Amino acid sequence: MLKPLRYENGTLYLLDQRGLPGEKRTIECRTHSDVADAIRGMAVRGAPAIGIAAAYGLAIAAREASAGAADKREGSILRFLAAAADTLTRTRPTAVNLSWAVGRMLKAASAALGRAETIVPVLEREARSIEEEDIESNLRIGELGGALLPDAASVLTHCNAGALATGGHGTALGVIRSARNLGKRICVYADETRPLLQGARLTAWELVEDGIPVTLITDNMAGYLMRLGRVDLVIVGADRIAANGDVANKIGTYSLAVLAREHAIPFYVASPWSTVDLSVPCGEAIPIEERESSEVTHLAGLRIAPEGVGVFNPAFDVTPARLITAIITEKRIVRPPLGEGLSAAVEGEAHHAGPEVYS
Amino acid sequence: MLKPLRYENGTLYLLDQRGLPGEKRTIECRTHSDVADAIRGMAVRGAPAIGIAAAYGLAIAAREASAGAADKREGSILRFLAAAADTLTRTRPTAVNLSWAVGRMLKAASAALGRAETIVPVLEREARSIEEEDIESNLRIGELGGALLPDAASVLTHCNAGALATGGHGTALGVIRSARNLGKRICVYADETRPLLQGARLTAWELVEDGIPVTLITDNMAGYLMRLGRVDLVIVGADRIAANGDVANKIGTYSLAVLAREHAIPFYVASPWSTVDLSVPCGEAIPIEERESSEVTHLAGLRIAPEGVGVFNPAFDVTPARLITAIITEKRIVRPPLGEGLSAAVEGEAHHAGPEVYS
Repeated sequence: MLKPLRYENGTLYLLDQRGLPGEKRTIECRTHSDVADAIRGMAVRGAPAIGIAAAYGLAIAAREASAGAADKREGSILRFLAAAADTLTRTRPTAVNLSWAVGRMLKAASAALGRAETIVPVLEREARSIEEEDIESNLRIGELGGALLPDAASVLTHCNAGALATGGHGTALGVIRSARNLGKRICVYADETRPLLQGARLTAWELVEDGIPVTLITDNMAGYLMRLGRVDLVIVGADRIAANGDVANKIGTYSLAVLAREHAIPFYVASPWSTVDLSVPCGEAIPIEERESSEVTHLAGLRIAPEGVGVFNPAFDVTPARLITAIITEKRIVRPPLGEGLSAAVEGEAHHAGPEVYS
Repeated sequence: MLKPLRYENGTLYLLDQRGLPGEKRTIECRTHSDVADAIRGMAVRGAPAIGIAAAYGLAIAAREASAGAADKREGSILRFLAAAADTLTRTRPTAVNLSWAVGRMLKAASAALGRAETIVPVLEREARSIEEEDIESNLRIGELGGALLPDAASVLTHCNAGALATGGHGTALGVIRSARNLGKRICVYADETRPLLQGARLTAWELVEDGIPVTLITDNMAGYLMRLGRVDLVIVGADRIAANGDVANKIGTYSLAVLAREHAIPFYVASPWSTVDLSVPCGEAIPIEERESSEVTHLAGLRIAPEGVGVFNPAFDVTPARLITAIITEKRIVRPPLGEGLSAAVEGEAHHAGPEVYS
């Protein structure tokens, strides 16, 4: 299984996704600052993957606190971890998986209530759990979504919601992989996804490696492709899902959803529950990261636009719930009204987890 | 006035638009094949500009026939011109301006009915007329469209329908220039327009040079920008307009039109009458050029997608008449129903040209 990261003995090894598919470099992160830099610089990207990377970043921070600091008392270690958590969380604002994973790590650290020697293995175990649970979630999302897909379909996807964006298998691409494993005849159109070309570089690469037929288009071709009748459904990942079912995802997702609705094409979001943020009522409340203008004006170091031009470079947009056919999570497939469906999924789980309370 | 081409003594000088804005190279075309190569390779592009270039290409062909051939009889020259016309017309199938200009040149050649010494100046004069009339059309389109625009507006445009795409001034950008000259406060969002980045490279450059505020976005940001309420209207050029008002234009135009309709934003097409093709009933009948996959998989010679990926690379799409607020031509502003409006514009002109027939 293709994986974006690997943790071993205090080092997080990241496949540097900025150079893919041409260059296969590995980045070694030995401090939590290294991890923060890698997330900020998008060496690792994809909502679930950056959550996992940040979790390992905190495990590394516990080692730093343990090894470097003269003062190894619990309070000092927890303060160091809190500062590291803050550094990691601030790297990218939109994907909620980052603060979700960091929050879970801090909780584990507090619960450990011990000194560095205890906290390090506890946090390493917790980060490993976050990674393994994400892979399990993806496999379950694949199972549910794979069953949902028709026996033969031409699927359009945007950006990379694949193995590289997660612990492994992928969300949107996980559904496609699982459907293929069921013997379904799925072919894929991949939006190249400017400015950073995650579709052209990562999604196309993952699918070519897996032998899944994939056709690359520029983002502005999607509407015409739909009009030609060549897209049966759209499936994308998510960076944050609000309580009402609005979905923040890579810039361009909203346009695709509008176009899909215009052509009566189902529009699916595949995402682990770690991306759901019930504390945010609706999409307008999700912070949208704006990134450097050079991502748009330059490509591989080459200037493609004149000096003096202004740039607007939002990394994400929000797709309103009304345009979404279903959200495929590991808990269940949530159908409209999405807000109620998301609540029901949580309540359903509460029931499932503790039936004895009601007996 | 910025111009994409200049003809002098049998040579067509083209500003090579492939290297702009970074490299300002001039290509010298001394044979009609040189011109055909330049059009095919998109050193010159934009529906009106390639029509003008092809017209000069035929003037050059007349010189070739006159200078090179032992047989300077009329029939031989006309045969040579017909072959040259065929070569020039086949370079790019979608923009009708090419066959329109070539047809007009052949008609002038037939009418000259003379030998090479006569045909060369006749064709040079005719090509010059086509160029000058295009500039006049653009100025008139600018006048009509400039008056139509609000006193302050944020305008989204796609690809390059500027001076570089025409004899000068531009169609969509001509409207913006004329509105600015009227003192209107117009700022522009330019779609970068993958794969060849005419928006980032050419439109942004033209506007920066003119001191018109311009903000560059990637194509997939347009929908989000509209949702944020930051676009007051969309204006684009055209490569062919069918009798029913369907418009073929740069790939991505259709998506923009759907998005504009979703957000109740006016969607204008600015185009000279030479782009109108009443012989084609509707958009489905317009041939859509597909170009090389390397335009999508490579950028500036650098591979950005993996080996083994399929590519779909249509250079144009068709926007149905129902999504268009108005077509701004030099004859008049055509409003829905566009098909009737286009017919009326022709009839109106027939009336206007010969009122004495009816007196």
